[in-house]
Amino acid sequence: MFPTKKVQSMIGSRIQVEMKGDEHLLEGMLESVDDYLNLHLLDTVEIADGERMRSLGSVVLRGNNIILITPAE
Amino acid sequence: MFPTKKVQSMIGSRIQVEMKGDEHLLEGMLESVDDYLNLHLLDTVEIADGERMRSLGSVVLRGNNIILITPAE
Amino acid sequence: MFPTKKVQSMIGSRIQVEMKGDEHLLEGMLESVDDYLNLHLLDTVEIADGERMRSLGSVVLRGNNIILITPAE
Amino acid sequence: MFPTKKVQSMIGSRIQVEMKGDEHLLEGMLESVDDYLNLHLLDTVEIADGERMRSLGSVVLRGNNIILITPAE
Amino acid sequence: MFPTKKVQSMIGSRIQVEMKGDEHLLEGMLESVDDYLNLHLLDTVEIADGERMRSLGSVVLRGNNIILITPAE
Amino acid sequence: MFPTKKVQSMIGSRIQVEMKGDEHLLEGMLESVDDYLNLHLLDTVEIADGERMRSLGSVVLRGNNIILITPAE
Repeated sequence: MFPTKKVQSMIGSRIQVEMKGDEHLLEGMLESVDDYLNLHLLDTVEIADGERMRSLGSVVLRGNNIILITPAE
Repeated sequence: MFPTKKVQSMIGSRIQVEMKGDEHLLEGMLESVDDYLNLHLLDTVEIADGERMRSLGSVVLRGNNIILITPAE
Repeated sequence: MFPTKKVQSMIGSRIQVEMKGDEHLLEGMLESVDDYLNLHLLDTVEIADGERMRSLGSVVLRGNNIILITPAE
Repeated sequence: MFPTKKVQSMIGSRIQVEMKGDEHLLEGMLESVDDYLNLHLLDTVEIADGERMRSLGSVVLRGNNIILITPAE
Repeated sequence: MFPTKKVQSMIGSRIQVEMKGDEHLLEGMLESVDDYLNLHLLDTVEIADGERMRSLGSVVLRGNNIILITPAE
Repeated sequence: MFPTKKVQSMIGSRIQVEMKGDEHLLEGMLESVDDYLNLHLLDTVEIADGERMRSLGSVVLRGNNIILITPAE
C-alpha cells in the first residue's frame, strides 16, 4: 500500500502527527487527507511527554510540514 | 470535506494560523485562500500567550510555511 | 481577491516581507511578483525593532521562503 | 540507478532515515515508497547514539522532510 | 521584469546569495540559473561580516533553499 | 550549462554536499541524480572540520533539502 493510501486508510481513526518546528505531537481523529498529505483533524489535542496539553478542536495541517504520521495507540 | 475545502469554508470568519519559524500565532479574518493554502487575512493580530501583541492589518501568508490552521474561538 | 492577486495589487508600493530564518524584516518597493510569490524588490532595507539596519538595494526573494507579506505603513 | 529507483530497491529491507528537525534516526522495514519519496515503514524504532529509544510501529514519513536514506547495517 | 528574469539578467556578473540555514553569504559569478532558481556559481567565496572566509570554487545551489539574491557591489 | 546539467556532469566523481539541518558535510561518489537533484552517493562519509567522521556507504539524499553541491577537491 502506497504511503498516501496508508494515510487514507486511517480516516475515521485517531492518529498522531509530528509537525516541523513543533515541540509537541498533535493527536486527533483523521477526518480527511488529500494527495499532498494535507490533513483535517477533529478533536485535536497537543501531547507532550505522554500528557494532554491543550485542546485545539478542528485543525487543518499543511502536508509539506508533516514529519511523520502514526496511528494513535 | 477535504482539508483545502475545510479552509475555504472558513472564509469570512476569524482563524488562527501557526507559521513555521514564528513564535507567535497570527489571528485574522480569512479573506481568501487558494489551492496552495496561501492565505489573505484582514485585521490580523499577533497573539502570544493568549494576549494580542501587534496589529498587522492586511497580511498574505505563504501556504507552504503554514503549520496549522484552526478556527478562532 | 486571491492571495497572489492581492500581492500583485501591491506592485509599485512599498511592502514588508518576513523571510524564513531571517531575524529582520525586509522592506522595499515591489517591482514584480510571479505565481510562486517570488518577489523583486527595489530600494530594499532591513528593518529590526522599527529601525533601518542595512540597505540592500535590488533584491530577489524566493517565494517558498516567504512567511508573510504586508503593506508598509 | 536513479535515486528513487534505488529507494524502491530497498522495499522489504530495513532502512535508516534522517528527518529534518529530528534529532534521532528512524529505522524500519520499508513497506512502500512513492515518487515524492514519501515512505511507509513498519516496525519503526527511533535510534540515538546507536541505541533503540522508542518503538513507533507503522509510520508514514513525508518525503520532502527526509534528509537522507541509507540501508540499515 | 519578473523575478526569475531579473536573476537571469545577472548571468555573467557577481551576485550575493543568502541560503537557508547558512550563517554566511555566498558570493560568486552567476554562470547559469533555471526556472526553479537553482544556481551555478563560479569563483564562489563565503563572506561573513564583510570578509572573505573560504573559497568554494564551482558551486550548485538548490533554488528552494535560497532566501535572497542581490547583485554584489 | 544549467545547474542540473552541471550536477549530472559530476556523475562518477566525488562531490561534497551540504544538507539543510546537518552540521556536517557529506562527501561521496555521485552515482546518479534526477531532475529534483535527488542524489545517490556511494562510499559516503561525513566530514567535519576537514576530518572524516563517520562512514555511511550508499546514501540517497532528498534534493529539496540540499543547500549546495561542490566538487570534492
